Amino acid sequence: MASALGLLFISCITLSVVYGNSQIDDVKKYPDPSPQTRGSPWPAPKQMTISETQLTVDQATFKFEFSETEVCSILEEAFVRYFKIIFGSYSTSLKFSSWKTLRSNIGSRSRYSGTVSALQVVSPCIDNIYPSLTSDESYTLEISEKGVATLKASEVWGALRGLETFSQLIYQDGLGTFVLNATSIEDAPRFQHRGLLLDTSRHFLSLDVLKENLDVMSQNKLNVFHWHIVDDQAFPYESSTFPDMSMKGAYNAFTHVYTQENVKEIIEYARLRGIRVIPEFDSPGHTMSWGKAIANLLTKCYSGGKPSGDVGPVNPAFNTTYTFLQNFFQEISTVFPDHYVHLGGDEVSFDCWKSNPDITAFMENMGYGKDYAKLEEYYMEKLLNIVSGLKKAYIIWQEVIDNGAKVAIDTVVEVWKPGYVEEMSRVTSLGYKTLLAAPWYLDYISIQDWPRYYMADPQNFNGTKAQKDLVMGGEACIWGEFVDGTNLLSRLWPRASAVAERLWSPASFNDTKLATPRIDEHRCRLVRRGYPAEPLNGPSFCGHEYVYHQ
Amino acid sequence: MASALGLLFISCITLSVVYGNSQIDDVKKYPDPSPQTRGSPWPAPKQMTISETQLTVDQATFKFEFSETEVCSILEEAFVRYFKIIFGSYSTSLKFSSWKTLRSNIGSRSRYSGTVSALQVVSPCIDNIYPSLTSDESYTLEISEKGVATLKASEVWGALRGLETFSQLIYQDGLGTFVLNATSIEDAPRFQHRGLLLDTSRHFLSLDVLKENLDVMSQNKLNVFHWHIVDDQAFPYESSTFPDMSMKGAYNAFTHVYTQENVKEIIEYARLRGIRVIPEFDSPGHTMSWGKAIANLLTKCYSGGKPSGDVGPVNPAFNTTYTFLQNFFQEISTVFPDHYVHLGGDEVSFDCWKSNPDITAFMENMGYGKDYAKLEEYYMEKLLNIVSGLKKAYIIWQEVIDNGAKVAIDTVVEVWKPGYVEEMSRVTSLGYKTLLAAPWYLDYISIQDWPRYYMADPQNFNGTKAQKDLVMGGEACIWGEFVDGTNLLSRLWPRASAVAERLWSPASFNDTKLATPRIDEHRCRLVRRGYPAEPLNGPSFCGHEYVYHQ
Repeated sequence: MASALGLLFISCITLSVVYGNSQIDDVKKYPDPSPQTRGSPWPAPKQMTISETQLTVDQATFKFEFSETEVCSILEEAFVRYFKIIFGSYSTSLKFSSWKTLRSNIGSRSRYSGTVSALQVVSPCIDNIYPSLTSDESYTLEISEKGVATLKASEVWGALRGLETFSQLIYQDGLGTFVLNATSIEDAPRFQHRGLLLDTSRHFLSLDVLKENLDVMSQNKLNVFHWHIVDDQAFPYESSTFPDMSMKGAYNAFTHVYTQENVKEIIEYARLRGIRVIPEFDSPGHTMSWGKAIANLLTKCYSGGKPSGDVGPVNPAFNTTYTFLQNFFQEISTVFPDHYVHLGGDEVSFDCWKSNPDITAFMENMGYGKDYAKLEEYYMEKLLNIVSGLKKAYIIWQEVIDNGAKVAIDTVVEVWKPGYVEEMSRVTSLGYKTLLAAPWYLDYISIQDWPRYYMADPQNFNGTKAQKDLVMGGEACIWGEFVDGTNLLSRLWPRASAVAERLWSPASFNDTKLATPRIDEHRCRLVRRGYPAEPLNGPSFCGHEYVYHQ
Repeated sequence: MASALGLLFISCITLSVVYGNSQIDDVKKYPDPSPQTRGSPWPAPKQMTISETQLTVDQATFKFEFSETEVCSILEEAFVRYFKIIFGSYSTSLKFSSWKTLRSNIGSRSRYSGTVSALQVVSPCIDNIYPSLTSDESYTLEISEKGVATLKASEVWGALRGLETFSQLIYQDGLGTFVLNATSIEDAPRFQHRGLLLDTSRHFLSLDVLKENLDVMSQNKLNVFHWHIVDDQAFPYESSTFPDMSMKGAYNAFTHVYTQENVKEIIEYARLRGIRVIPEFDSPGHTMSWGKAIANLLTKCYSGGKPSGDVGPVNPAFNTTYTFLQNFFQEISTVFPDHYVHLGGDEVSFDCWKSNPDITAFMENMGYGKDYAKLEEYYMEKLLNIVSGLKKAYIIWQEVIDNGAKVAIDTVVEVWKPGYVEEMSRVTSLGYKTLLAAPWYLDYISIQDWPRYYMADPQNFNGTKAQKDLVMGGEACIWGEFVDGTNLLSRLWPRASAVAERLWSPASFNDTKLATPRIDEHRCRLVRRGYPAEPLNGPSFCGHEYVYHQ
């Protein structure tokens, strides 16, 4: 593996003398720009051999050819999408005078060994299916020395991943010719769950931004959109069963909501890119915005023997609470097709519960004494049973387990708190599937922090092989306090790309020095495709810079 | 002053129950959104009294009326621009159903006392003039209870500032009606030089981004674009005298350069907004990119008695150096109309000079011993004399003074290093005009850092009144290592707005708690106008959120 990648680097460093913008003026830059790779895929494939044989791809004649007589919408739309991604019109960024210079500098195209006229895609293609935790995303991609290109996958999701890799192998030489090297790839993800959490409660995010982000996720082979859709601050989910929840709980009930139609649109957009949408409806804490519409759902806090006017977490002592949850999650389980729902369970403060006389009476009745963790456990178990009864599985934040609640065996526990190395060991020793999020809170910002994200490994804890196998993957999280449509995408990308390679590529990709030129190329690739991916590694430039007004 | 502003806040808090998005659903948000101001200008005017009398402005009939028979291009273009800014089409963000709700919630428009049908602008207006350090930006703005609106200024630059304030007084009620309160304003800036430094060397910035930034600068009453146009990394300035400097020194000589035409376009765009363009050509350090085209300009570094192949700062020992500088700054002095040029002079390393035998000989000849600061002083004085001879004044970084160089009396010294409070005292005690930049390096990022910028005061040092009067103002700086077109504007705004109010408004505006709702309103104002100004103060929303694809 290492040697195959080694070849890639050597090959590309050699080529960089001849290709790309750097050959327009061959003067050494100061300080030396980081060694540029050309056509190096991100995240790195499991196995890749790149030959020095270079082939061209002709925009006028290139075709995606599909093995079956009927193509499903997933691949049909992907072919259209990837044609645009590969051959996007970039000519405006070079002036005429430069083309003349280029022609005289570069000379003829005779160095190229042939042309790739088509990519043969051999894959099943069934409509109306959704990606899942057990989807097979593996594929093989062969571009022979003679220019025969073949992509093979056993599920359509693997074909999508392979199309992305194919698009990344192609680069432009200084003359604008689309070029790729003969290449052989066998690829499959290291982890099944490679997620990204967006928070649409603290700040609302428009459908446009959510879709752009799904595009970039798929271009980083991330496959789970963890939609932290509501929280204390706002309830933008427009429920069909309880429309008052957004009417009263959204920042603006008309402009800052996701209608049923909007949610469907996002789920379909994600599905076409092989991305699961897992909604999070976090309770019993983080529910202030829920309580505006649902009477008696939240605990009334007391002060000096009287209601203070404040409310706290969901009230676990009332039966009406569970009737509501049954009806609400009944809806959620049909609106969101994924087998998993995220049920939260983090950061529950006991102060309000302690002050409330109904809760005190309930605690006595249940024999919980002063152990409010038992009350939380009681609530979570009731909730989890409701959701299990709806034939859904669930993901929960680590506190639920930390507090000792009994959960179903297919539960996924998400680890987010400091001390995560020990927690990963503990959670997997209890036999639970787990996801790591703790080292990847991208809402915390500092200069050049991506190497830290890159070097965090979800399986780097004390445990048996069986324990390590319980690690489903991880999630990059960008909580919404300080991001909205103005800065989300530029703050997220390509910092989240570091997490994406960690979760897709073999663990042996753990050298940030080797990764640096590759992530630089990847960020310029995203910029060229129209996304505002920010510079990570100091002074630099891209062949095609970001166009502010698209 | 404080009481006048107090009135504004009280008035607005009262209004917020009735107006804006919050009245669509009158449920309390959690946590309470920060108290919203409506129509509160940023930066705050010197004197302002706001009445509770509310007037409407009708898009169909409103006019700017000019006192003279002929209007100059500066005001003519400003009228067109501000009409668009005030009445930009925002209806798409509200759905039809919401309008019905709004109508029933709000009832009739009878509460409004009248209509402002025109703004009378009384000001001189002369074409082909440029703003300068001595421009008069003061203005008065009266909107009477009867709706008579008058803006008076003694120079056109004051009229521009007053138009901005007028546009900020106007807000929309929940029905979409444009409303403003009867208001009386007397305004003038506290400091004459209110700058923003952009660095187009570490990363190239497109003309589009530079122009958007000039727009936002003018909407924050900043009046100097400090264009750090070249540096070690790249030389994007396309010189007519020395075209090889960008041909060999730019990242890309065709796509990553500013042509003479581009520079003219930026200067004119800035002029129309009352913004000076001061270019920085920093030497003798930070000049690696200059040396590629100009033979023997940079010092050859030696190692073990032989040239090492590396080069260092400009070589002060050769006469050819000064011939080049004479010719180069001859061009610069004609291309950039402002009286000031920034000549840099920061961060000169002596290591390379020490290694070079020509320099050693020159030092001996001059009797400098081992005091390389003397050599730097020699260079800077020669350079400053050249530029003085071209009838230009100059700004320099503090090191030039720290090293003891003699400089012309109208020199402006820019203070950027830690320990700036003492340095401001020292520089002004030497009788130099000064600018403060040190506390406002916005390329350093952390969450919610704007209060720190807001509380830094350029006159907060030990010194006489005469010393304080030497403070011309200051500059927010965003160095280019980690910003380009993808993230510059969202990272800069509204963080730089905190600096803008510090430099424009009276020193008594020094309460970040009072400033918080106002800067929140200002950030939403910028977002509504189409700029990606990021959220600064936690969970929030804007009536009109950022539209990603403009």
